[in-house]
Amino acid sequence: MILRLGQIELFVTDLNKSKEFYVDVLGFIEVERTESSLYLRAIDEFDRYSLILTEKPFAALGSFGLRVSSPEYLEVLKKKHEEMGIKTEYSLDSIHPGKGPTLKVAEPNGHPVEFYHSMEQISVGNQNGGVDALPMRYSHLHRGIPPICIDHMNLRVPNVDKALDYWEEIGFSISEYVQDGDEKFAAWTRAKTSTHDVALVKHSEASLHHIAYIVDGVAGVVRTADLLADAGYRDSVEYGPGRHGVTNAFFLYVRDPDGHRIEIYSGDYKRDTDLTPIGWTKEEYDQKGRLWWGPTVPERFFETTAINPEWMKSVVKR
Amino acid sequence: MILRLGQIELFVTDLNKSKEFYVDVLGFIEVERTESSLYLRAIDEFDRYSLILTEKPFAALGSFGLRVSSPEYLEVLKKKHEEMGIKTEYSLDSIHPGKGPTLKVAEPNGHPVEFYHSMEQISVGNQNGGVDALPMRYSHLHRGIPPICIDHMNLRVPNVDKALDYWEEIGFSISEYVQDGDEKFAAWTRAKTSTHDVALVKHSEASLHHIAYIVDGVAGVVRTADLLADAGYRDSVEYGPGRHGVTNAFFLYVRDPDGHRIEIYSGDYKRDTDLTPIGWTKEEYDQKGRLWWGPTVPERFFETTAINPEWMKSVVKR
Amino acid sequence: MILRLGQIELFVTDLNKSKEFYVDVLGFIEVERTESSLYLRAIDEFDRYSLILTEKPFAALGSFGLRVSSPEYLEVLKKKHEEMGIKTEYSLDSIHPGKGPTLKVAEPNGHPVEFYHSMEQISVGNQNGGVDALPMRYSHLHRGIPPICIDHMNLRVPNVDKALDYWEEIGFSISEYVQDGDEKFAAWTRAKTSTHDVALVKHSEASLHHIAYIVDGVAGVVRTADLLADAGYRDSVEYGPGRHGVTNAFFLYVRDPDGHRIEIYSGDYKRDTDLTPIGWTKEEYDQKGRLWWGPTVPERFFETTAINPEWMKSVVKR
Amino acid sequence: MILRLGQIELFVTDLNKSKEFYVDVLGFIEVERTESSLYLRAIDEFDRYSLILTEKPFAALGSFGLRVSSPEYLEVLKKKHEEMGIKTEYSLDSIHPGKGPTLKVAEPNGHPVEFYHSMEQISVGNQNGGVDALPMRYSHLHRGIPPICIDHMNLRVPNVDKALDYWEEIGFSISEYVQDGDEKFAAWTRAKTSTHDVALVKHSEASLHHIAYIVDGVAGVVRTADLLADAGYRDSVEYGPGRHGVTNAFFLYVRDPDGHRIEIYSGDYKRDTDLTPIGWTKEEYDQKGRLWWGPTVPERFFETTAINPEWMKSVVKR
Repeated sequence: MILRLGQIELFVTDLNKSKEFYVDVLGFIEVERTESSLYLRAIDEFDRYSLILTEKPFAALGSFGLRVSSPEYLEVLKKKHEEMGIKTEYSLDSIHPGKGPTLKVAEPNGHPVEFYHSMEQISVGNQNGGVDALPMRYSHLHRGIPPICIDHMNLRVPNVDKALDYWEEIGFSISEYVQDGDEKFAAWTRAKTSTHDVALVKHSEASLHHIAYIVDGVAGVVRTADLLADAGYRDSVEYGPGRHGVTNAFFLYVRDPDGHRIEIYSGDYKRDTDLTPIGWTKEEYDQKGRLWWGPTVPERFFETTAINPEWMKSVVKR
Repeated sequence: MILRLGQIELFVTDLNKSKEFYVDVLGFIEVERTESSLYLRAIDEFDRYSLILTEKPFAALGSFGLRVSSPEYLEVLKKKHEEMGIKTEYSLDSIHPGKGPTLKVAEPNGHPVEFYHSMEQISVGNQNGGVDALPMRYSHLHRGIPPICIDHMNLRVPNVDKALDYWEEIGFSISEYVQDGDEKFAAWTRAKTSTHDVALVKHSEASLHHIAYIVDGVAGVVRTADLLADAGYRDSVEYGPGRHGVTNAFFLYVRDPDGHRIEIYSGDYKRDTDLTPIGWTKEEYDQKGRLWWGPTVPERFFETTAINPEWMKSVVKR
Repeated sequence: MILRLGQIELFVTDLNKSKEFYVDVLGFIEVERTESSLYLRAIDEFDRYSLILTEKPFAALGSFGLRVSSPEYLEVLKKKHEEMGIKTEYSLDSIHPGKGPTLKVAEPNGHPVEFYHSMEQISVGNQNGGVDALPMRYSHLHRGIPPICIDHMNLRVPNVDKALDYWEEIGFSISEYVQDGDEKFAAWTRAKTSTHDVALVKHSEASLHHIAYIVDGVAGVVRTADLLADAGYRDSVEYGPGRHGVTNAFFLYVRDPDGHRIEIYSGDYKRDTDLTPIGWTKEEYDQKGRLWWGPTVPERFFETTAINPEWMKSVVKR
Repeated sequence: MILRLGQIELFVTDLNKSKEFYVDVLGFIEVERTESSLYLRAIDEFDRYSLILTEKPFAALGSFGLRVSSPEYLEVLKKKHEEMGIKTEYSLDSIHPGKGPTLKVAEPNGHPVEFYHSMEQISVGNQNGGVDALPMRYSHLHRGIPPICIDHMNLRVPNVDKALDYWEEIGFSISEYVQDGDEKFAAWTRAKTSTHDVALVKHSEASLHHIAYIVDGVAGVVRTADLLADAGYRDSVEYGPGRHGVTNAFFLYVRDPDGHRIEIYSGDYKRDTDLTPIGWTKEEYDQKGRLWWGPTVPERFFETTAINPEWMKSVVKR
């Protein structure tokens, strides 16, 4: 089965600027840097990296990776996609270091999804594991917020119900949703037991709204804004802090040097994925769901990021 | 000498509504209730109360009290005010319980100031003091945020420089100020070593902008907004959370049922009062001083509260 | 499949005393009280209750419940236990309110395990779910720590390897373990992605060491000790706060009026359950695994609680 | 008048080792390093430095500095000491950078006290002060805990009542004390409004027990232990975390590479210095005053540090 969102690749236009923002200020750990990509990890992650920043002439969502429970499950997913009439691309190895076979698909709205099982685990101690095996046990080396772990993607799609047909088919379930008359305005879906791995929100075109990392409580969220303003990135603090009604998250939205939006996030809940989702009407959502309390939403919060235009094609070419 | 801001009296129009807001939701401790007034304390305060809510047909700033270091110092202040040509009114006892002699004055802009020395201390333990003497040692009985202690007043005055003549004369010093050409736009002044007991900001008429209580860190500030929204007071969350550049405070402004503004506050610094104040130009203040980072200031944040129209007169009459 | 630890029943000797400790001081929410039992919930839980305190002439671990993904999976588990030669007892309904069919087994060491799927969900809002559906959205009514959600059990068993045969057979996997020569001294096993639902530690006899609830970060853990000392339960603060090397938990162990040990807990990590467990040698564990840092372990920390002597029998009789 | 404790000089035996501990792990800011001394600052301090580590063949308390409200007050203190028959030594400038005239005295028990008024203020921004003037506004450069500001000294003296004669004479007042029959076992005294600048506790010989720095709340205190254990200084975590009844402080005691004890400290209260002190009997103190709750005090916690053997003499010689 699919376990969780495990990785995100963003296209950025200047790796050095991105490095300053993500590593020097926010405190992502730089794991490796190649000519074109920067590989980053949050402090509680055992995977060698969870965020890939790849230099391109344009900014876009490169792709995102969903980890599955076994190598064999990639085969199951391949078949399932064929049954849905969706083309897939299986590669024995990834262009990214430490990663095993991947199955690439374009989700019906064009979102660039990659399924994978095998990912190199960090080895920070003795072979045995033991005393040095916990990644978070290096607090004296940490800086910035620091981010704790990857959490979710918020995708925009023209038709949420149609998108749900796909996501439910591959095993995601809904934690909360917004019903707008006959159609769904939004749905928070997940493989893991938190409120979402992938949120789907209605928008004129398929695009990325934000990615999200979890930090240490309310203080970690607020610290993010302090860090950015202190380091001269005051305009990167886009929206918040505030509390979402849906998911109960305490949030701050920040924009990286390319305009990619990152939600710095704390406080959602865990719930078994088989239980009845929580439904909001559009009116309830507009009143309290989007914002349990908090400042008015600024206009630029509705901007989104384009999707990798070369997905699928690109696999062969680059 | 003057030690600090110690007490505030607000006129409110419905004591029951005020009680729900301050006691049931925010977690002020109800100390005593008379026919007309509610006496409240924050959890770390040794004074029997610091906030008095008095029912009147109209909302206003009733008065605020500055504690002085000895009974004799009231005499010194009396003389000092006479030299400044300011009328004073000395009373042997207060209409409020547990309070000793007071010296009432109308500050040159009309702000209702009361000087006092003697104030009943809470007695929660054995006579000796001892194991039960610390007010904060009752956490199992606390609720709400809870507020920790009174901090400051933010007053509006038509002319900040003139107001400063008075406040510096009685011994306050400036921690930070905003210079707008030939005149000061604002000044944060204090008797104690934190950034302010009394802030003075230019405005068309003398009025109260807000009172402030300190809470436990960033989490306490954010918890305030959650408490209010959860209890149905979502519209009371007026502005914030955000960070002021001036004073470095992490703030949330909330409005009580009468529209009185309370700043829920954490994070300013201590500094010896004899040191050179920090100056901001008006441009610096508008850029970063008011808001180091945070949401746009909403229009209603510029509303202010009227001052007690019966101050001085009222002492005799009521 | 098995999803997680969902419920614990403790036998206590005085329900009123237990109520004071769990509800009035620690802040568990009282959901229902029958003649013999008190049903409690933590604030982020959607299940109607997670802790049952049942009055008995003696204190013991009554049972603990593991939630499974479907009603049908109870059948699968029944068969699996029969294949292991373990007697099971299936009941269509529980003696506890709001609970569906249960499958009771005595784990090979005698630990009283109950599998269930259906559990009443709290309904705090409109039928739809919507604005009032999130249990945590009642902060103005909360008190005490408050506890956030149930996390795990720490069981003592005479032979950890043998116990593991059972727990791995029913689908649990190991997150961390301590190897002592040829045998395992301890293993942390789980169905969910946190470090454990059930920890198994070697001890002369099968017994309960502690149950654990998650609270809000480091401040929540420390607040627990303050609450207990302030309310006159100073001796209930048994051990900590400190940091475990294994699991990275920040902990405080407290004892209820019957001596049941509760770990107040924050800070372990999430990891996919299919990944290689982290191994510690007994030497590593004694040096840093048990205690990454913290005070010396007091002698009484090694005391354990007896198991329900009437389990299985009791189902019929009571 | 005397304002507060402003500076401490510790003699250490290896500046490089001290630098690793204080700067690299705990996060003190290195301000300047000379051949013999390392000058350190905490993040909210406007004084250029508050801690001086000076390399010597032996570890000891070098001296501690109390800031006074004006240069003239040094003269007042000189006279006051002469009246008490205590020798003083006035120097126009200090051997330490940025410091004005000092008045050195040996307190009756031999403790090395230095009074001073003028101390260089950090200048991190424009001449005006303004946007860059707040020292804490550099969070992106901070690391470690970090420490926020200097707080107090805990001194050991053979006779607390006699020591109090001196400290009260120079204007300190008692916040809390422990009465043991006819004599005081301990007294917390201060110039500022927090619970202490100088604590005096009975001990066989005059010596230093600990110095204390304030950090950001409970989380900052616990983070200190994590940082030390993660960086390989596990044995430096001597005692705590726990809560003192006296002062209400949440504490952790750590030992530097020379064995100097630093209290990492959060949570005491503010109170006007003219109010009646809180008294504890020795029995109350032993029960709850020392430890409101917390782990048993380890034996090595009673070790103390020697006082500068060359004080007064040394001024001339070095």
